[in-house]
Order: sequence, then structure tokens, then C-alpha cells
Amino acid sequence: MNKQHLYLQRSQDMLWLTEDEQDNLKISYRIRDVLFEEQSPFQHVMVLDSYDFGPMLVLDGVVQTTSADGYIYNEMLAHMPLSVHPAPRRVLIIGGGDCGVAKEAAKYDAVETIDLVEIDEAVVRACRRYMPDVSGGEHPDPRIRHHYTDGVAFVKNKQGAYDVIIVDSSDPVGPAEQLFSTEFYRDLHSALNEGGLMVCQSQSPIFHKDVMMRSWERIGKLFPYIRMFTAVVPTYPGGLWSFTLGSKRPLPAPEDIRFDKEARYVNENVLRASFALPAFLEKLVADRSAQ
Amino acid sequence: MNKQHLYLQRSQDMLWLTEDEQDNLKISYRIRDVLFEEQSPFQHVMVLDSYDFGPMLVLDGVVQTTSADGYIYNEMLAHMPLSVHPAPRRVLIIGGGDCGVAKEAAKYDAVETIDLVEIDEAVVRACRRYMPDVSGGEHPDPRIRHHYTDGVAFVKNKQGAYDVIIVDSSDPVGPAEQLFSTEFYRDLHSALNEGGLMVCQSQSPIFHKDVMMRSWERIGKLFPYIRMFTAVVPTYPGGLWSFTLGSKRPLPAPEDIRFDKEARYVNENVLRASFALPAFLEKLVADRSAQ
Repeated sequence: MNKQHLYLQRSQDMLWLTEDEQDNLKISYRIRDVLFEEQSPFQHVMVLDSYDFGPMLVLDGVVQTTSADGYIYNEMLAHMPLSVHPAPRRVLIIGGGDCGVAKEAAKYDAVETIDLVEIDEAVVRACRRYMPDVSGGEHPDPRIRHHYTDGVAFVKNKQGAYDVIIVDSSDPVGPAEQLFSTEFYRDLHSALNEGGLMVCQSQSPIFHKDVMMRSWERIGKLFPYIRMFTAVVPTYPGGLWSFTLGSKRPLPAPEDIRFDKEARYVNENVLRASFALPAFLEKLVADRSAQ
Repeated sequence: MNKQHLYLQRSQDMLWLTEDEQDNLKISYRIRDVLFEEQSPFQHVMVLDSYDFGPMLVLDGVVQTTSADGYIYNEMLAHMPLSVHPAPRRVLIIGGGDCGVAKEAAKYDAVETIDLVEIDEAVVRACRRYMPDVSGGEHPDPRIRHHYTDGVAFVKNKQGAYDVIIVDSSDPVGPAEQLFSTEFYRDLHSALNEGGLMVCQSQSPIFHKDVMMRSWERIGKLFPYIRMFTAVVPTYPGGLWSFTLGSKRPLPAPEDIRFDKEARYVNENVLRASFALPAFLEKLVADRSAQ
């Protein structure tokens, strides 16, 4: 491989990807091979076969998900709302181009349609082809309907169309910033039917406290029931990651959550335990709720 | 600062530490200042003030603990055994030179003595001086007794001397490898009195599965009661970290654990929830138990 690749460096005959996203922390992954590389209309898309994490999806030089740990995030984001909702028939996923959340959602017999709104077709194509462990491969469940369009626009004027909406966004920089805005949350609220609920990733409680609390407050103003849960996401900065549930129906107590699907990370105890917030986080959330 | 520092590189007038421990993953931390640097008889010891994680303890160029997240690990390692044991009077900590576990153990009124056996006095001195958030500072609780000697030798011939033993080891490479050996676990078992229990960190369930399972089997052969729990340790590879409890007394069900101390990460729910193992880990542990 002598071709020059964007974002990759060769050093002593080894190929490396160094993430340049953060000013004061650099993570470099040793790469075995470039499986996919394309400049889409939206971003630079790669799937890199890494030594430590297997195939990884890399957008504009930043690792998004890996075969070694992507299942943790995808399972938590999919199974929490789908276990909490008693009869999830119509599901909307915004973002989630790696198709992992859709793959997990397809495990529910009650689910009739899964609208997957990812703006970048190249991401979906790359993951379906080169990250089958994460995406489910090239022959997806027929209930999954791909919409290659902007999620923010798609969700407008969808009054009461969904039981569950899952926001699988990237970090709130650039276009993804809108996915953390009050207006967007308001559109989600309208797009949910009477007993509907939404979930979003709400960043690291350690390194993005402000973003996390802003989401918490905005969702809390719109939905009568709100709850935070956490999971470990090894390749995200800080490892500990927060998720926020906003619901129009009362949420079950953790110990009443049931789960009977096959999964690698999630089981019934893990879903229940994920509501046990670390002391500093419980305090943060309680302080703001009291305001 | 124009001095040359071991393990540090200067690039475009910025100072960086790059961990060289792993072959295929390099993490580089931007450093504000070198607070402490000394070649001890055992290792190269630094406390570096980093931009993202505050002061960090660095041994032979590898980050051991940071002010931003060290409390998670220290609180889990201290509060689990001390909450599970009904009357922990005599506590032994092996390793733990950052003094964080000892600081947490001193929160229990029942505790009469805390023997802290760290071979390297320079580590203790550096952390007490430059990482007071982690160590508790330069005026420690008088129940803490420092022993600057080899933990493996110290614990031999201590028949029934302790209620709780906490093994705060580094990775099982070099001298720390002994802290994962059957012989060492046997000595711990002897050093515990009748109702005594031990806890050790047992590495990452994702990246060090073999080490983790070897500890699990070895401890399980010696102690009638054994249980695994997990926590997030942001600056450790993989984020998700495993801990193993071995006990001579029956262990309480998670929902019967009580906790009433002030802490930043640990609370009663977090202690209970930490026994909810991810699906793949529960399966691993169950498979081996069944053999």
C-alpha cells in the first residue's frame, strides 16, 4: 500500500491513524489495512482495519465506532427504549449510519417499521460491507427503511408517527449541533404518539458536563418523564457515557424492566443497573431537577 | 523549562507524554508542567500536570492514576470490601502508593489500623505532595501505617491478621506479575482471619480476558465465596474494569449492601449495580464456574 491516505501517517513501515479532534489528547491507532475510503458529499469516510479494535468507522479522521466495542453503545441505545416501551411498533432512528441500532431494534417482533435516517449513504454502504458485526451485513431486516436525508428536516411534520425515537448522533459540533437543540427536541416530541418515548446519547458526564446538562434540561422541559442512564463506551473519551430518556408515558422502575433478547453486552440486570448514577452525577441531575 | 525530561517530547513548543506501553495504541497527553520527577530504586516516578486530567502519576512513562478520574477506581476498590464486611477493623492495602484507597478506608470508624504496603517511598511522597485530591495530602489519618517494602514478602506469615485485604496492583507485567499468582492469593487467604475477605483489581474484561479469568479461577479455588464487579476507569484501556472479591464469609446479596459515606463516584446504588455484569462477562464467569 503506497497510496497516500488522508488522515493516515506511515512511520517505520507501520500505518497509524492519529485523531486530531482534541487539543490536549491524541490517540493513535495502528492500522493493518484501509478497507474503505471515500470522500462523500458530507465527509471523508473510512473503514480501517485496526490492530486493537478490528474494523473501525472513521469520519473526517475521527473514530466513530469499532467492531471491538460498538455493540455496547448500540445495544444500550436500542434496548433501553424498546424494553421500556410495552409495544414499540414504529421506530425512528436518527443518525446511526453504522446500522447497529437498527440491527438491534429488529430483534423485537412487535416492531413493524424501522425508519433509519442517515444523511450519508456512503457510511451505510461502508458499514454494511466492511463492519458486518456492527451493521448486521448486506442483507438487513426488511423492516428497516433507509432514508438518506437530513434527520432534522425529516422529523418535522411527522405528528404522532412514532412509538420510539432513537437519536444516535455524533458529537455536538458542526451539523450535529442541531441534534442537541430545543427545536429539534420539540420536533421529536411532536413526532411521537401519545405513549411515545425518545432516547439520545448525551455525551460524557466527566468531560462534557455542560452539553449533558443542557440536553437534560431541554428534554426535561418537554417531556413529563425523564431519566438518565450510563454505559461504558471504551473508545469514547472518558469511557463513561450518558444517555437520556424522555417519555410521554410513565417509566417503569428499574427493577420492573424485562429483557429477553440475545445480546453481547445488555442483559436484564445491566439495563436495570444502568440507572444507578455515580454520586456526582446523581447530585448534578438532582440539583437541576430541583430548580 | 528547557531541561530534558525522560519520556517527554517537545513539539511546537508544547510538551507531550506519549505512553509507549502498548504496541498498537499510543495515547499522548499534553502536559502543562512537570511537578515531580525522580529515579527511585524501583522505577522512574513523575507527577505531570496534564491539560485534560490534571496532575497524573506516571511510572516508567505509563499513566497510573489522574486527579480527574482516580477517585473512581480508588472508591470502588475501598468501599466495596469495607461495605460488605460488617466490622472491618484491621485493613491491609498492598500497592496503592497513590494513597487513595487508604484515604477512602479511613472513612470507616470501625477501622482501627490501615497497613499500606507500597515498596516505593518516592511514589507515596510524590502523591502526598502533588496529588492531594487523590492521596488526601501530607497529613494522613493516623491509623494509616506506611510500610515501604515488598507486598508479596510482607503478607507471608501474617496468619489471620486482617479483616480486609485490598490488592491495588499495577498491570501483571514485571514484578507486579506475582500479585496475580496462586501463591500470593494463598498467602492472602492465610493472612485473613475467619470472616475475612479480599478484593483485587482484575484487569479489563475486554482487553485482558485471560488475566481476568486466571485470577477468577485462582481466587475461586481458595475462597468459598467469590464475586466479580465492574466499574468505569476512564484512563485505563477499555474503560470497563473488573474487580474480584474473594471471601471466607458469605457475601450479601447486592440489594442488601449498605453505604453511607461521602464519596464522589460511589453511592449505595452504584455498589449494588456494579455486580450487574455485561452479558458476555456473565457468560464467561458462569462457564468457568460450571467446570
